[in-house]
Amino acid sequence: MFDLARQLDAQDPLASFRERFVVDDPNLVYLDGNSLGRLPLTTAERLSEVVQKEWGNRLIRSWNEGWYTMAQTLGDKIGRLIGAEAGQTILSDSTSVNLYKLAYAALRARENRTEVLTDDQNFPSDVYLLQGLADQLGRHLVIAPAKELEHRLCDQTALLSLSHVAFKSGQLLNMRNLTQGAHEVGALVLWDLSHSVGALPVTLDADGADLAVGCCYKYLNGGPGAPAFLYVRKELQDQLRQPIQGWFGQARPFGFELDYEPAPGLAKFLVGTPPLISLAAIGGGVDLALEAGTDALRAKSLALTAFFIELSEQHLTPHGLSVLTPKEPHLRGSHVTLAHPQAWGISQALIRLGVIPDFRAPDGLRFGFAPLYNTFAEAARAVEATTKVMVAGDYHKVAETAPTVT
Amino acid sequence: MFDLARQLDAQDPLASFRERFVVDDPNLVYLDGNSLGRLPLTTAERLSEVVQKEWGNRLIRSWNEGWYTMAQTLGDKIGRLIGAEAGQTILSDSTSVNLYKLAYAALRARENRTEVLTDDQNFPSDVYLLQGLADQLGRHLVIAPAKELEHRLCDQTALLSLSHVAFKSGQLLNMRNLTQGAHEVGALVLWDLSHSVGALPVTLDADGADLAVGCCYKYLNGGPGAPAFLYVRKELQDQLRQPIQGWFGQARPFGFELDYEPAPGLAKFLVGTPPLISLAAIGGGVDLALEAGTDALRAKSLALTAFFIELSEQHLTPHGLSVLTPKEPHLRGSHVTLAHPQAWGISQALIRLGVIPDFRAPDGLRFGFAPLYNTFAEAARAVEATTKVMVAGDYHKVAETAPTVT
Repeated sequence: MFDLARQLDAQDPLASFRERFVVDDPNLVYLDGNSLGRLPLTTAERLSEVVQKEWGNRLIRSWNEGWYTMAQTLGDKIGRLIGAEAGQTILSDSTSVNLYKLAYAALRARENRTEVLTDDQNFPSDVYLLQGLADQLGRHLVIAPAKELEHRLCDQTALLSLSHVAFKSGQLLNMRNLTQGAHEVGALVLWDLSHSVGALPVTLDADGADLAVGCCYKYLNGGPGAPAFLYVRKELQDQLRQPIQGWFGQARPFGFELDYEPAPGLAKFLVGTPPLISLAAIGGGVDLALEAGTDALRAKSLALTAFFIELSEQHLTPHGLSVLTPKEPHLRGSHVTLAHPQAWGISQALIRLGVIPDFRAPDGLRFGFAPLYNTFAEAARAVEATTKVMVAGDYHKVAETAPTVT
Repeated sequence: MFDLARQLDAQDPLASFRERFVVDDPNLVYLDGNSLGRLPLTTAERLSEVVQKEWGNRLIRSWNEGWYTMAQTLGDKIGRLIGAEAGQTILSDSTSVNLYKLAYAALRARENRTEVLTDDQNFPSDVYLLQGLADQLGRHLVIAPAKELEHRLCDQTALLSLSHVAFKSGQLLNMRNLTQGAHEVGALVLWDLSHSVGALPVTLDADGADLAVGCCYKYLNGGPGAPAFLYVRKELQDQLRQPIQGWFGQARPFGFELDYEPAPGLAKFLVGTPPLISLAAIGGGVDLALEAGTDALRAKSLALTAFFIELSEQHLTPHGLSVLTPKEPHLRGSHVTLAHPQAWGISQALIRLGVIPDFRAPDGLRFGFAPLYNTFAEAARAVEATTKVMVAGDYHKVAETAPTVT
């Protein structure tokens, strides 16, 4: 399998992008870029500049020298990766807080409807938020299996809120069809793009999406806990009102008037002063994704996951590991999950062998393929190491400790 | 005045702390540390380590090597600056989002009361949030003059929400008396400590405060837009429920169950993954404040502001600038505001002379004194420069441009 991997790496048009990232240990097989992406070289430089020069030397003046517009500027750049015309994407808060703001706004815009609909593959944090909001606003949260979603949409559905790519299985939902189905019953749609942005082309405008949120620390390589983005379709911006009224969302934040007047356009979805250093860390990774282009990223991502799935079926299925991720390319994102009752122990044994996947309770072993820096050789090495772990069979002995944050 | 300033600087027990900050231009008189504090040397080093080593090299493993508990660890350290026993202070989101979470929780805990009370000196962002929440929950927001607050508390008051030090005038409210007054009518109290933490001793536990929020980028020198802290008194933690239910506030975030169960204690007030680089920037400044001690910080702060007020009355009042900040030490925080109809033009002229104050609409010229690095000589230089501007009288000519972010 290593011969084929070498051949595929040699033909990879994105191969040179790996050199644009900090890779201190070339032997580490890092397949957790869907939890925390690698550090781009330009980002390390940029952060040093932000800290030393912009904070250290220019101090408060930096707010007028680029900081104040950074959330918009970066938002529009990310917009180009998710098929959003300028003025619809902005950086703010965390994915969860953004989901709260947008889902709240959507529910208030559908005051006479009783239901919020999501699926049982959605990221739990999204479900928690929707549960809290539904309680708060006297609505009912329906959690349906993904394949029943279109059937469960009805004239009582206020909002359909889904993860574009499921965090566990890696299944990719059909944005266009689901959005259209929701619109047919008069519901609004909110997409969580955390596991798709930077790995595959998203076409929010073309698919008619209403709202979206997403995270910048996975395939965008924006740094740990990077501020998140939100998208509000142009025509909805004036109609919607978000619940957390802060000064960055005020029409005249420096007027210091005591009455809140929402800023026009997208800015009213901002709240407080953004965590600037973390915000500034996002640009480098976004620029790399734009330079590579979403079609090329998707092509490589599919090639990597297809290669890994094929090797897994050949070498790992005989050891009891089953491929949980859909094999049809149009149904999957950029990570592959193998299921095994001892997934936690196996993941720990792999880490000791220098291969980093992650574990998703109760039985998921998740391998993320970041098209900007992962190689086919790494996919092969991951399969080789997993085979070794299964043959040795010592994965039962690992003590339970806290799994890592995604 | 410079002789006296030199003498006061020579006697200043905190004088050596200035060397612990990046000061690239020793001639710049930076009196805007109440908007954005200076960069501590240790923070610059720490950030380089976080970026290069922890993100770049250790990658996802860093979450289990200190990142995951950082919000709690830093929170407890800040707790020592605000008179809070461990387990009551935690870092999360922005000040505004934290205010939303806590004010919401408080209003739900006083379901049968109709009013939220604040004063007209509160920071507008806080007022916007309270307005939005009051609308949302069918309550009425009362904005009273500060001196009428005790009189306006009544059996309909659900929550009293105030800035400890007023952002514009610099007036310091009496936390103990106001908290006691609110408790007498059965209301909860929420303090915004943004302009007091790191500049004066706050005694939340001793004063019986219920809730507090505060910002880390002013006197704590935690970096632009640094994540904020929140405080919830121990006994209230189990009773209160916050509205933004995210996975960092879940009892078992890595269980990935679909039902939200709030984490015990303070952790349930967390929401999403925190912006880690900005979070890591906070520690250096907090350590310096702890090393100096809040009593020493307060003593120097009061000496600096007293000196500046005295010089202002002597040299600037004759030019039409009046001191807006209370002269009684127990009634003021760590900044001094001079009022003048042309405050905006004067602030711009001062910046050209290498003195950075800030402008607060419509007529406030605000001079912040950060006890860790500002000197008495700087206070004197600011008065000298302002005198020069007033004598030259060319401050009318400045074009209007956007003021900076605080």
